Order: sequence, then C-alpha cells, then structure tokens
Amino acid sequence: MQYKAIKLVKRPELRITPDLFETVTLETPAIVDGQILLKQTHMSLDPAMKGWMTDDRKSYIPPVELGEIMRSSGVAEVVESKHESFAVGDRVVGMIGWTEYAVSDGQGLNKLPPGVSAEAVLCVLALPGLTAYQGLIEIGKPKAGETLVVSGAAGSVGSMVGQLAKAEGLTVIGTAGSDDKCRWLEDELGFDSAINYKSDDLAEQMAGATPNGIDLYFENTGGPVQHVVFNRMNAHGRIIVCGMIADYNTATPAPGPSWINIIKRRLTITGFTMPDHWDDVPRMMQELATYLAAGKLKYRAHKLQGLESAIEGINLLFTGGNTGKLMVEL
Amino acid sequence: MQYKAIKLVKRPELRITPDLFETVTLETPAIVDGQILLKQTHMSLDPAMKGWMTDDRKSYIPPVELGEIMRSSGVAEVVESKHESFAVGDRVVGMIGWTEYAVSDGQGLNKLPPGVSAEAVLCVLALPGLTAYQGLIEIGKPKAGETLVVSGAAGSVGSMVGQLAKAEGLTVIGTAGSDDKCRWLEDELGFDSAINYKSDDLAEQMAGATPNGIDLYFENTGGPVQHVVFNRMNAHGRIIVCGMIADYNTATPAPGPSWINIIKRRLTITGFTMPDHWDDVPRMMQELATYLAAGKLKYRAHKLQGLESAIEGINLLFTGGNTGKLMVEL
Repeated sequence: MQYKAIKLVKRPELRITPDLFETVTLETPAIVDGQILLKQTHMSLDPAMKGWMTDDRKSYIPPVELGEIMRSSGVAEVVESKHESFAVGDRVVGMIGWTEYAVSDGQGLNKLPPGVSAEAVLCVLALPGLTAYQGLIEIGKPKAGETLVVSGAAGSVGSMVGQLAKAEGLTVIGTAGSDDKCRWLEDELGFDSAINYKSDDLAEQMAGATPNGIDLYFENTGGPVQHVVFNRMNAHGRIIVCGMIADYNTATPAPGPSWINIIKRRLTITGFTMPDHWDDVPRMMQELATYLAAGKLKYRAHKLQGLESAIEGINLLFTGGNTGKLMVEL
Repeated sequence: MQYKAIKLVKRPELRITPDLFETVTLETPAIVDGQILLKQTHMSLDPAMKGWMTDDRKSYIPPVELGEIMRSSGVAEVVESKHESFAVGDRVVGMIGWTEYAVSDGQGLNKLPPGVSAEAVLCVLALPGLTAYQGLIEIGKPKAGETLVVSGAAGSVGSMVGQLAKAEGLTVIGTAGSDDKCRWLEDELGFDSAINYKSDDLAEQMAGATPNGIDLYFENTGGPVQHVVFNRMNAHGRIIVCGMIADYNTATPAPGPSWINIIKRRLTITGFTMPDHWDDVPRMMQELATYLAAGKLKYRAHKLQGLESAIEGINLLFTGGNTGKLMVEL
C-alpha cells in the first residue's frame, strides 16, 4: 500500500519555507515480530519544531537529520500488530512524524484511554498540557492567592497554563494578540483578565490588572510583554521561560531586561524543555487527565486537512494566525 | 564622653556625594540593665550600602531613614556592660553603623572567637564571606569538576567565591579590572585563570580559559563580562546574581541578554540578598571558620583611617579603586 511522508531536506534560515521539505511516496513495509503498523489520524504542529529543524549543537535535542522524515507527535491507530502489547484498533500517542503510516516497536508510545478524543489528547495530554504542567506546577510551584501572568495565553501551552493556575486558586492574567482571543480567555476559559499586547497602553492595563504585583510569570512569547511584566514582579517571584516565539523569526533576538531587579526582588528565572522530563510523562498525563475529567481544562483545536497542509500551515504558529492548538487531520 | 557619628540626610541621585551626610558629635548615654556600650574598631564599607541609602520600596530591606545614622556592619569591643551575656573586653560583630560608639541590647551581635583578627572577620566571616557562601554553596550547588566564572573576582565577595570554589574542586576563572588584580588572583589565591575584562579580546580569552564551557556564573558586576559568559553557559548551567556594580551608577541600566538561551540551555538564574538568610548566619559562619582555619581563604584588607574617611572612601567600591576589602579603622 502506498502512503505519503514529508522529509526535511534543508535547514531554515529565518523562516520556514516550502523548499525545506520534500513529499515522498512510500510503500508500507511488511512488519516483523515485535512491530506494529500505525495509521496516523492527527498530527500535532508545535513551535518547538522550528528548533528541531535547526542544527544548533547546544540545543536540547538533536536536530532532525536532513533526509529524515520531519519529527512531530501525533495520534495513530494500530492497523497491524505482531507486538504482544498492542492490538489492532488500539489508539496511541507518540512521536510519529510527518507521515501517514509508520512502523514502530512500541517504544515511546502511550496507549489512549477509551473515550478521549484525538483533539483532547493533542491539546491536553500531549506536549501542550505536559509542558504547561511541568513549567507551572513542577517548576513554578504556584500557591493559591498568588498572581500569575502568562504570555501567549491563547496558545496551546498558554491556555493550559492559565486554566491549571485557575484550578489551583491563583489570579490569572493572560496576554494575547487579538481582542477575540482575549474575549475567549475571559469568557470561555475563566481568566480573571486578558490583555491585547498590541494595545498602546499595555503597561497601564497590566498595572490595572495586577494591583498586587506579579508572583509568577510564564513566558511563551518574549516581546513587549516581557519587559512590562518583569517590572511588576514581586519579591521572590518566579519566572518560567518556556518559549520566545516573538524572537524565533528574527536574526538578532531582542535583549532581555537588566539583571538588577533579579537581585533587588530575589527572582528566579528558569528555562526548561520537555525532553529533560520524559520520565515523568506517565505521571503528569495522569494528573492532567484528572483535571480534564473534572472539566477544568477546555481546549480549542485548529485543524488543517491532509498531510501536506503542514508545510505552509506551521507558519500560523509564528504569525499568530491559528485559533487554537494547531494540528493536521489525516 | 563625646563621640562622632555620621547621619544620612539626603538620598543619592546617581553618585554618593559628601552632601548626603552630616557628621554629628554626641554624648555617650548611660546604659541601663540589659544594655552594653560598644566602641567600634573596624567598620565595613560594602556596595550594598548604596541600596540602603536609596528609597526603593521594592528593595529587599527598608532604606536608612533620613536623619538616621548610616547603616553598616563592623567589629566592636564591649567597653561597658549591664548585660549578662556580654563582658567588658568581649569583641563582637554586627550592624553597628557609621559611629564610634553605640548602645546595644545584644540583638543581632555575634561574639568573636579569640585569635581571629578584625580584618579576617570583616573579610571572611561577615558580609563578603557569608554572601559568597550563600550564593555559591547554597544556591549554586557546585560540583567538583565543574567550571565556575566569577566577575569582580578581586572584590571582597568575588575573591571568597573563587577560593570556596577551588576548595570544592572546581576550575575557577575570575575577571577583574587590572592586570595587577589578575596576577593576585592567579599567584596568591590559586585561580586557574584571571582575565582583565578591559582587554580588547575578552571573548577570545574567555573561550580559551573555558574550553568545556561554563557551568556556574557568579555575577558581581554586570557589564561586558555578563554577555561573554552567558553565551558560553552549558546546559543546566546556574547563574547566581549577587551584584551589578557596573550599573549602580548609571541612570539607565544596560539590558541583559535575550532569554532564548535560558530555554535552549535550561539555565536557572537566581538573585539573592543576604537579609533573606540571616537565620542561617551562625551555621554559615561556622563553615567559613573551618575553611579559614584550613588556610583555604586568603584575604586582603584595604583600610581607611578615621570615621569620616567613609564619606569619600565608599566611592572606591564603584570606581574599582580599592585593593581589597574596604573598611575603616577607627
């Protein structure tokens, strides 16, 4: 049987352009003992992918090699099995890549509980939810009554961060790039306040929304929000640096704030990436499933159609054009 | 008996100028039960004092009120006692202030062990040593074999940081502002390498001195060293932000590095100040006394003479003009 896959054949300069990729048509191989054949149904597109395309030796995981199928997580169905732990019809989540079919030995795959939709998995139980949980709960150690600001709040990670923090009893302020997104955060997700970071009076709005200062900042974007929030951090505040999407497409990243206030206010700034925490994933998925079952975590999927829609579609993440967790339905 | 003291009467703009202070002549009061009269012999001058003179409500300790005697730590002798825990002749260290005599109820004073000089106390067992210990050992958690860079390495805190790190088995590189200071660090204190940060080829020298990258950075200065070191941090590196002396006398502090590498290299940046850790001081003093007795901590005192020499002399800390821990001998 023939299927399509997309290989990375060139590394990005500043932007992700169609010439970085090559679509190939392959034959599904015969599987051997200990293997399964997966048919992917939903493929996740995440900002981290730009890093995976780039050959930065100091980065946190090895880049995708040129000529390899592009890396991504996704949901798939087992359509053939010679593996004792997997049956035909099982649904799994894992790093499957930009491909319609894949052969696996089961390593790194997690089986899905029945009744959980593929959208819920990619929005909550996969990278976005895990990233939010690791950063906010494990690193940030939020306490009820504290004030959290999250940038990129309408994004896949940011929307989970804000809802987890609300569930933990914090006052939550989000920033986003449109009034529509802000309304969604306030009206649907229960944020205490949402601010359009493109407003002329961003600093005044932030001051008005955080009369007691800011204890926790979850950084997804960089850009102007970073400086406005940094200046309002309280003593012993924690900043969790997860993403800097405003700077991923610039040749010279904007400078950060002076470190003087790191001393004066005894701040801790921590950067993290999920690959350091894979061992904790099963436990974190369980925690997230509990919040999800309790109705604490709403989500919105932005679905593209067909494998090749990923090539242009991934740029929506960097222009802010997506309205929800970006994924491809196959 | 008459004595002199110096009050803070005005807050600094950018620089510490003589008109901020007023020298007054006072009478030693009669002490009552539970009090002691102290005659100060050595008074410490520290960069943190500039913060204490400034009315920044978000700072870590309340400023010195206008009209109050300027705050400082020092070594004193008990010359009169109506306190059961202190005898005439006891030597103590504590926050005594810019004054020749002071009355105390003993709170916050630590008695000195016999045989330890006042210079050793102010250089090692007081603010510089305690700050170095708290930042390097408690926050930085250094491991033998790691590489540490400390800026302001010839300063009172920096010289202790580097020596503590050597004692713990790290490779230690210091930066300082003159070739003389660098020679002292290498030849007398046993640093693996010392770099004059005013060199044209600072980045090249740093690369040469840290072939395996940098695991720990102890920041005392800000300025050009910050960016050069930041770019060489290893994955899971820790940065301890203790001082930013290059920026204390500027109206607009220089920006810090972009936060992108905080993510890519999973860095943790922590600011701290000693007043959050007073409860640990007795234990830390004991630890430091052990290093001192083992000959692991050398020090150099830069002594000014007479109370009023503090007024102009404190600026040596901001021009780099001092050659050792700055103090006033009374």
